[in-house]
Amino acid sequence: MSDVKKVVLAYSGGLDTSIILKWLEDTYNCEVVTFTADLGQGEELEPARAKAEQMGVKEIYIEDLREEFVRDYVFPMFRANTVYEGEYLLGTSIARPLIAKRLVEIANATGADAISHGATGKGNDQVRFELGAYALKPGVKVIAPWREWDLLSREKLMAYAKEHNIPVDFAKQGTKSPYSMDANLLHISYEGGILEDPWAEPEEEMWRWSVSPEAAPDEPTYIELTYEKGDIVAIDGERLKPHEVLEKLNKLGGANGIGRLDIVENRYVGMKSRGAYETPGGTIMLKAHRAIESITLDREVAHLKDELMPRYAEVIYNGYWWSPERRMLQEMIDQSQEVVNGKVKVKLYKGNVIPVGRVSDDTLFDESIATFEDDAGAYDQKDAEGFIKLNALRLRIAASKGRKLD
Amino acid sequence: MSDVKKVVLAYSGGLDTSIILKWLEDTYNCEVVTFTADLGQGEELEPARAKAEQMGVKEIYIEDLREEFVRDYVFPMFRANTVYEGEYLLGTSIARPLIAKRLVEIANATGADAISHGATGKGNDQVRFELGAYALKPGVKVIAPWREWDLLSREKLMAYAKEHNIPVDFAKQGTKSPYSMDANLLHISYEGGILEDPWAEPEEEMWRWSVSPEAAPDEPTYIELTYEKGDIVAIDGERLKPHEVLEKLNKLGGANGIGRLDIVENRYVGMKSRGAYETPGGTIMLKAHRAIESITLDREVAHLKDELMPRYAEVIYNGYWWSPERRMLQEMIDQSQEVVNGKVKVKLYKGNVIPVGRVSDDTLFDESIATFEDDAGAYDQKDAEGFIKLNALRLRIAASKGRKLD
Amino acid sequence: MSDVKKVVLAYSGGLDTSIILKWLEDTYNCEVVTFTADLGQGEELEPARAKAEQMGVKEIYIEDLREEFVRDYVFPMFRANTVYEGEYLLGTSIARPLIAKRLVEIANATGADAISHGATGKGNDQVRFELGAYALKPGVKVIAPWREWDLLSREKLMAYAKEHNIPVDFAKQGTKSPYSMDANLLHISYEGGILEDPWAEPEEEMWRWSVSPEAAPDEPTYIELTYEKGDIVAIDGERLKPHEVLEKLNKLGGANGIGRLDIVENRYVGMKSRGAYETPGGTIMLKAHRAIESITLDREVAHLKDELMPRYAEVIYNGYWWSPERRMLQEMIDQSQEVVNGKVKVKLYKGNVIPVGRVSDDTLFDESIATFEDDAGAYDQKDAEGFIKLNALRLRIAASKGRKLD
Amino acid sequence: MSDVKKVVLAYSGGLDTSIILKWLEDTYNCEVVTFTADLGQGEELEPARAKAEQMGVKEIYIEDLREEFVRDYVFPMFRANTVYEGEYLLGTSIARPLIAKRLVEIANATGADAISHGATGKGNDQVRFELGAYALKPGVKVIAPWREWDLLSREKLMAYAKEHNIPVDFAKQGTKSPYSMDANLLHISYEGGILEDPWAEPEEEMWRWSVSPEAAPDEPTYIELTYEKGDIVAIDGERLKPHEVLEKLNKLGGANGIGRLDIVENRYVGMKSRGAYETPGGTIMLKAHRAIESITLDREVAHLKDELMPRYAEVIYNGYWWSPERRMLQEMIDQSQEVVNGKVKVKLYKGNVIPVGRVSDDTLFDESIATFEDDAGAYDQKDAEGFIKLNALRLRIAASKGRKLD
Repeated sequence: MSDVKKVVLAYSGGLDTSIILKWLEDTYNCEVVTFTADLGQGEELEPARAKAEQMGVKEIYIEDLREEFVRDYVFPMFRANTVYEGEYLLGTSIARPLIAKRLVEIANATGADAISHGATGKGNDQVRFELGAYALKPGVKVIAPWREWDLLSREKLMAYAKEHNIPVDFAKQGTKSPYSMDANLLHISYEGGILEDPWAEPEEEMWRWSVSPEAAPDEPTYIELTYEKGDIVAIDGERLKPHEVLEKLNKLGGANGIGRLDIVENRYVGMKSRGAYETPGGTIMLKAHRAIESITLDREVAHLKDELMPRYAEVIYNGYWWSPERRMLQEMIDQSQEVVNGKVKVKLYKGNVIPVGRVSDDTLFDESIATFEDDAGAYDQKDAEGFIKLNALRLRIAASKGRKLD
Repeated sequence: MSDVKKVVLAYSGGLDTSIILKWLEDTYNCEVVTFTADLGQGEELEPARAKAEQMGVKEIYIEDLREEFVRDYVFPMFRANTVYEGEYLLGTSIARPLIAKRLVEIANATGADAISHGATGKGNDQVRFELGAYALKPGVKVIAPWREWDLLSREKLMAYAKEHNIPVDFAKQGTKSPYSMDANLLHISYEGGILEDPWAEPEEEMWRWSVSPEAAPDEPTYIELTYEKGDIVAIDGERLKPHEVLEKLNKLGGANGIGRLDIVENRYVGMKSRGAYETPGGTIMLKAHRAIESITLDREVAHLKDELMPRYAEVIYNGYWWSPERRMLQEMIDQSQEVVNGKVKVKLYKGNVIPVGRVSDDTLFDESIATFEDDAGAYDQKDAEGFIKLNALRLRIAASKGRKLD
Repeated sequence: MSDVKKVVLAYSGGLDTSIILKWLEDTYNCEVVTFTADLGQGEELEPARAKAEQMGVKEIYIEDLREEFVRDYVFPMFRANTVYEGEYLLGTSIARPLIAKRLVEIANATGADAISHGATGKGNDQVRFELGAYALKPGVKVIAPWREWDLLSREKLMAYAKEHNIPVDFAKQGTKSPYSMDANLLHISYEGGILEDPWAEPEEEMWRWSVSPEAAPDEPTYIELTYEKGDIVAIDGERLKPHEVLEKLNKLGGANGIGRLDIVENRYVGMKSRGAYETPGGTIMLKAHRAIESITLDREVAHLKDELMPRYAEVIYNGYWWSPERRMLQEMIDQSQEVVNGKVKVKLYKGNVIPVGRVSDDTLFDESIATFEDDAGAYDQKDAEGFIKLNALRLRIAASKGRKLD
Repeated sequence: MSDVKKVVLAYSGGLDTSIILKWLEDTYNCEVVTFTADLGQGEELEPARAKAEQMGVKEIYIEDLREEFVRDYVFPMFRANTVYEGEYLLGTSIARPLIAKRLVEIANATGADAISHGATGKGNDQVRFELGAYALKPGVKVIAPWREWDLLSREKLMAYAKEHNIPVDFAKQGTKSPYSMDANLLHISYEGGILEDPWAEPEEEMWRWSVSPEAAPDEPTYIELTYEKGDIVAIDGERLKPHEVLEKLNKLGGANGIGRLDIVENRYVGMKSRGAYETPGGTIMLKAHRAIESITLDREVAHLKDELMPRYAEVIYNGYWWSPERRMLQEMIDQSQEVVNGKVKVKLYKGNVIPVGRVSDDTLFDESIATFEDDAGAYDQKDAEGFIKLNALRLRIAASKGRKLD
C-alpha cells in the first residue's frame, strides 16, 4: 500500500467521505486532493471547501459542472429516449462519467497516481467510476475504501471519526435520513430503509423534490417546449441553457407531482435492488421528446432507435459511457436528431405529463395524405392491394403447402 | 367479378357495413354471410342480427368472443410488455387477428370463397384482416369495397343507401361523432376530425370511456392483482376470467382518469397519423406486469425481452399475428413467464398508475444480499474489484495503446 | 398513359431493353433518353450507343461509373461485413442504388418526368430501382414494362422486335445462355434454367468468371492487403483506386476458383428463389476485412456490428439504400472503421481464402497480456475470481431459490 | 482453506491435473474425486484411471459422454447456425457446460463440497466451468489452482512433480507440443507458441485432424445428409446416432482438408487472443444446415434467427449455457426447427464445403411461382406496383418535404 503518492478523492464534504479522506492519508500515507462538484444536487459547496481546508487538504477542487453535465451527458442520453428496464431514467448513472472524467483530469493536473470514491462494493456506482477512470487513464490506481476497510458499521465509522477528530455534525446525525440518497440536476434517488421490502409503499415524507399528485394544484399547467436537433432550447419561448432548461422543468414537474418512481431494478453486479427516484424534469423531457420525434422522425429510424435503446440504456447503466460502443451508438443517435426540431405543447397535471400538441417545420405528418376526407389523389387506395398481396405471399405459400399458422 | 359465390362479411350492423352488404350482393351477384362479434365494444349485437335479417341475409353469425379475445390475444401480448413506438398499447391491432380467424373459419363452414370487411385502403386494419385471412386460407378471395367502389364521400354513401332502401338511422346520423372510432375490450380509438391537426388538443367531450384526471376522485384507489404465469388471475383476491379481469380494470381505470393517450404514429402503409386512445385496463396491466416481472425475472431474460419487444410490437401492429415469426417470439415470451407469479399492489389516482408493492414466492429479490446493513457475508465486496478490473481490461488496453475514449 | 413526356430508360443495348425503348415510344408517345453505365459488367458500351442512335434516340448517356460504384457503394457495404442470409454478398443489390440515382439525375437534367427499367415484376430489382427513384424524386413516374405489357413470352418479344424492326442478333440468340444473368464489378449472377430445381447442381459450363477449384492452380497465391479506415487501398504494396482493387481481386480470386455460391434465397416480394453467384474479389474482401477488424476493433463494437449486420444487409437487399435508416446505420459503421487500418496477408488456394497474418499500428492485440508465458504482472489472474463470482451472482441467487437451470 | 472436505477434480490424467490433484490434497487437506470424460478428444481413458489409482484416489469417475455431448449440446447449438465473431464454431465453449454439469452431479453424489479444474486465470474456460457450477449448485466451492498457487512456470511445476513423486512421462515431455491444445468431438484447438504473433502463419505440422487442402484428394467427395428437426440423422442414407454423425463428418472433412481456422478472437475476460482450430465435421454441418433451412424456413423466421445468432453465440462463448437467457433463446430456436426436414447434397473438395442440392417435403420453394417461365397466374406481377408504392410512401413524403436522402 506504499506505492500511492497522491490520490484524488471525490469529496462531498459529508461525514463518510471525510472519514475516507483521513483513512486514505493514514492507510496509504499519501497526499489527498479533494474534488467536489456541483451537479445540481442542491447543496452548498463552500462548506466542503471549509471542511477540506480544516482537514489540511492543500489541493482543493470545487467546480460548478451543471451546464456541462446537462449539455454533454443528460441531453445526449435523452436523445435516445433512454429508459432502463422500462422505467428508470438513469439519473445516477449519467452523472458518474463526468465525475470519473474530472477525477482523472485532476489526477493528471496534480500528478496524482490514484483516485478514490465513497461508493460501496455492492452497487453500480463503483463500477461506473472505475470503468470510466480506467478507460481514460489506464494506469490509474483506484482506491475503493468500502471494499478495503473494516469500518462496516455506523458505530465503527463514528468511532473512527471520533478517534481522528473528524467533525461530526451531531445535530444533523440525529435527523439523518434512513435512506441512502444521491442527487443531481436530473434526479434524487432513495435506497435502503423500508424500501428493502418490495411490498412496502414508500412513505410520503421520504420524497424531497416533488409534491405528491394529491398535493399538486387542481389546475393544470401548460408549457411549450422548443426543440433543436433533439434538445430543448427554450421553454415558453424563453431561450435557456441546457441546465436552466432542466432546472425549470424540475420546478414545474415537482410542483405538479411529476416524476416519482418506485421500482425494483437489476444491478450490474448481479443483485436486484429497490430504488425510489424523483425525476420531475426528466419525466417531462422523455414524453415531450417522443412527441416531437413522432412527427419528425422517419418510421424506420424511430423503430431502429427503439430497438437499440435498451442496449444503449444498459451501456450507460453498467458504466460504459466512456467506451467505443457508447460512442458508436451515440453517433447514430445524434445523426438521427438533425431533423428533430419544432415545438411540443405539454400539459402537466397531478403526476401526468400529457403532450397535447406538436408542430415542426420538419414534420413528416402529411394531413393531405392521412385525412379521412377526400385526399385529391394524394394516395391511391388501390396500391394497398398489391402491398398486402405481396406481403402475404410467403404466408400464402406456406399455408398452401400445409403449414399451420394458427 | 363473377367468380365469387359466397362472401363472409365482417358486419357491425352500422350504416357502412350495411351498404357494403348490399353492394357486395349487387356487384358480385353473390350470397353474403354476416359475422358480428362481441369483443367488448359495448354495443348490443341483436340489432345487427335484426338488420341482417331485414336485408335478407340467410346465414348470420353472432358471437360473444370476449373471453377468447382477452385470453388468447390480449393476455399473450401483455406478457411481452408490448408498446408500439413507445406509447401505443395496440388496442385495435390485437383484435384483428381474431376477426380474421373467425371470418376464415366461417367461410370454411359455409363454403364461402371470399371474405369482406369495411376497412379503408389507407389504414392498417385492411392489412391486418387480409394478412390473417391469407395466412389461414391462402386461396381466399378478399373484397375490400373501400378500395374498389366509387362511393368515396358521405353524400354518395347516403345516396346509395337511399337508392337501395338501406335503413339509415337519421336521428343517429345527425349526432354522428366527428371521429372515426373503434372499440373492443382493450380500448377505444379516435381518428379524424380535429385530430388531423397534431397541434390541436383533443376536446374533453371526445373521450368516452374515462373521466378526465381532473374529474377523477380525490381519493386514490388501491387494488391488488394476482399473477400466474404472467397473467392476472385475480383482483383483490377475487378470481376472474381473463375478460372479467379486463372489464374490471377498465372500470377502475376509467373511473380514475387512467389510460388516455394522444399520439402521432407511423402506419404500416407508410404515413403518419394522429390517434387518440383510451386503454384504462391495459394501462394498469402494463405497469403492474412490469412490477411483477421486476422481482421474478432474471436480468438477462428481462433485457432480452425488452430488446425484442419493439420487434414483437411491430409484428402485431403490422398485422402478422398469424405468422411463424410471431409464434417464434411468443414461444420465447411465454417460456419466460413460467416464473411470473405473485401479487402487485397498485395505486390508481387521477391518471396515475403507481405500483407500490410486489411480492412473490418466485422472487429473485434477496434482501439479505441487497441490504445496506450487514449482510453476514452473503456478498463479498472484494469480488467487485476483479469484476471491474476485467470488465475494464479491453478499455484499458485500448487506452494504453492511445485510443481516445472521451 | 398520355401524361408522360420524356422517360429515362436504363438501357443495356440488349434485345429486351431495345424492345422496351420502342414500346415506351409507342405506348406512351414519349421521348426516350437512354442511360447505359459501365459498372464493370465486362461489356463494351459503344454498341449500346450505336444501337440507341440507330433507334433514333436523341439524348444518350453512356457513363463509366466503376470507380464511383466501388468507392461509394461496394466499399461502404463491405465495412459492415455484409452478408444476406448467411451467404449472399449482395452483388446485384448494391448496384441498383447507383443506377436509380443516375436515372433520377438524368431525368432532372433532361427534364424527363419518368424513368423506366427492364426488371420483371417478380424480382427484387424493380423494388430497388423504384424505391431509390421515389426517394430521390418523389414525383417521378415509374414505368415497368414487364408489369404492364403482354409480351410475356420469348415468342411474343421476338415477334414484337421483328414487327418494329428492332435488330436481333440472331447468331447470339442461338447461343443465348439459358440463365438470366446480371453482372457488375462485384459479381455475376445466374437464375433460371436448371437452377429452378434446388436439388440440381449447377453445370460447370454455367460459371463465367472463375475456374473451378479443381481447375485452379496447384500452388497457392499469397497476397497482402493494406487497409485504411476499413477499405483496401493497396494490394501487395501497390496503391490502387477502389475499382482497381476489386478488379485485381476478381482476377486473383477467379483464377484460384474463389467466390462461387449456389443458394436459395428469400426475395423481398415474398418468394424463395435459387441463385448462383460468382463474387471472387468480394469473397476475399469479406474474409480479409474480418481479419483486420479482429485485431483493431474493440470487442463490443465488433459484436454490435455483428448484431446489426443482418438488418443492414436486409435494408440493402430490399432496396432501401436511399433511406434514412441506411444512412443511420452507415454513420455508425463508418465511425467504427476509423481504426481499421493495417495489413492482412491472405492465402488463395483452390476456392479457399485463408487469412494467415494480420498486423496494424492500431492493433488491440496485446501479446504481453495474452501470452501463456510469464506476463510480468500485466494481468492479475486473481481478478478472474471476482469477475466470475459477480457474473454468477444472479444465477446463484436464482439457483439458491430453487430455479432449475438444467 | 480448511473448510473443504472433498473436491471433484476435472482430471485428464496428464501432468498438470495430476499435480493439481496432489496440490489439492496437500493444500486443502481434502479428499479428491477424479472425473475423466470421453468427449471424443481421441485419448484413451484407462491410463487416467490407472494414474488416479496410483495416486491413491478412491472415487474415480470415468465416463463416455460422446453421445450426450453431441445430442444435447453440439446439435442444439448448430440449430442456430452459431458462429462467434463471424468465424469461430465454439468447439471448446460447447464442451464446458457438460463437464460443469457432471462435476456438480458427481459432487452431489459423492458429498463433495467443492470442484476444481485446470483452466488458467486468463482464459474463458475458467469462466465457463465456474458459471456452470454456480448456476447448478450455488453453494459450491470452486478451486482454480492456476489462480491460487505460485507454480507459474514449467520449471516450478516439474520441481513440484518431482518432489511429490508425481510420475512424469519424460519421453512425452520431450516431444511436448509447443501449443496449448484442447480437443473434443467437435474440434481441436491450438493456442500459444508462434500463434502469439498474429502475423505468423501456423506451421503445417501443427494441424492434427485434417490434411491440408493441398494434400487432400484431387477428386471431390459427395455426401447426402438427412435432416430431422434441424439435426442430421443419416449420412448417405445410413441412420446414425448424433456422435456417430459427427465422427463420420470429422473423418470426411479431415480427409478433404476441411475445417481449419486461424483467427484472433475476443475473450470474455477482456483480451484478444490468437487461436487455431480444426472443426471438420462442424464446418460441414454449418453449411449444410443453412442449405436445408434455405428451403424450409420462413424468411422472417430465418432473419430473426440471424439477428439473434450473435447474441446466442456470445451467451455460449461467455459460459452462460446454464442460464435462463440461453434456455429462452433455445426454446425459440428449437421451435423454428420443427420444419427443418429433408436432404442436402454436399460436395467436399480440398477445403471447400459446397451444398449442391437441397430437397424437402417441407420445402417452401415454389417453382411455379419463382419461375422465369409462364407461371399460369400463380403470381400477379401487377401487385408489385402497389407493394413498391406503399413501401416508398414514407420516403416520398420525406423527399417531397425536402429531406435529402442522397
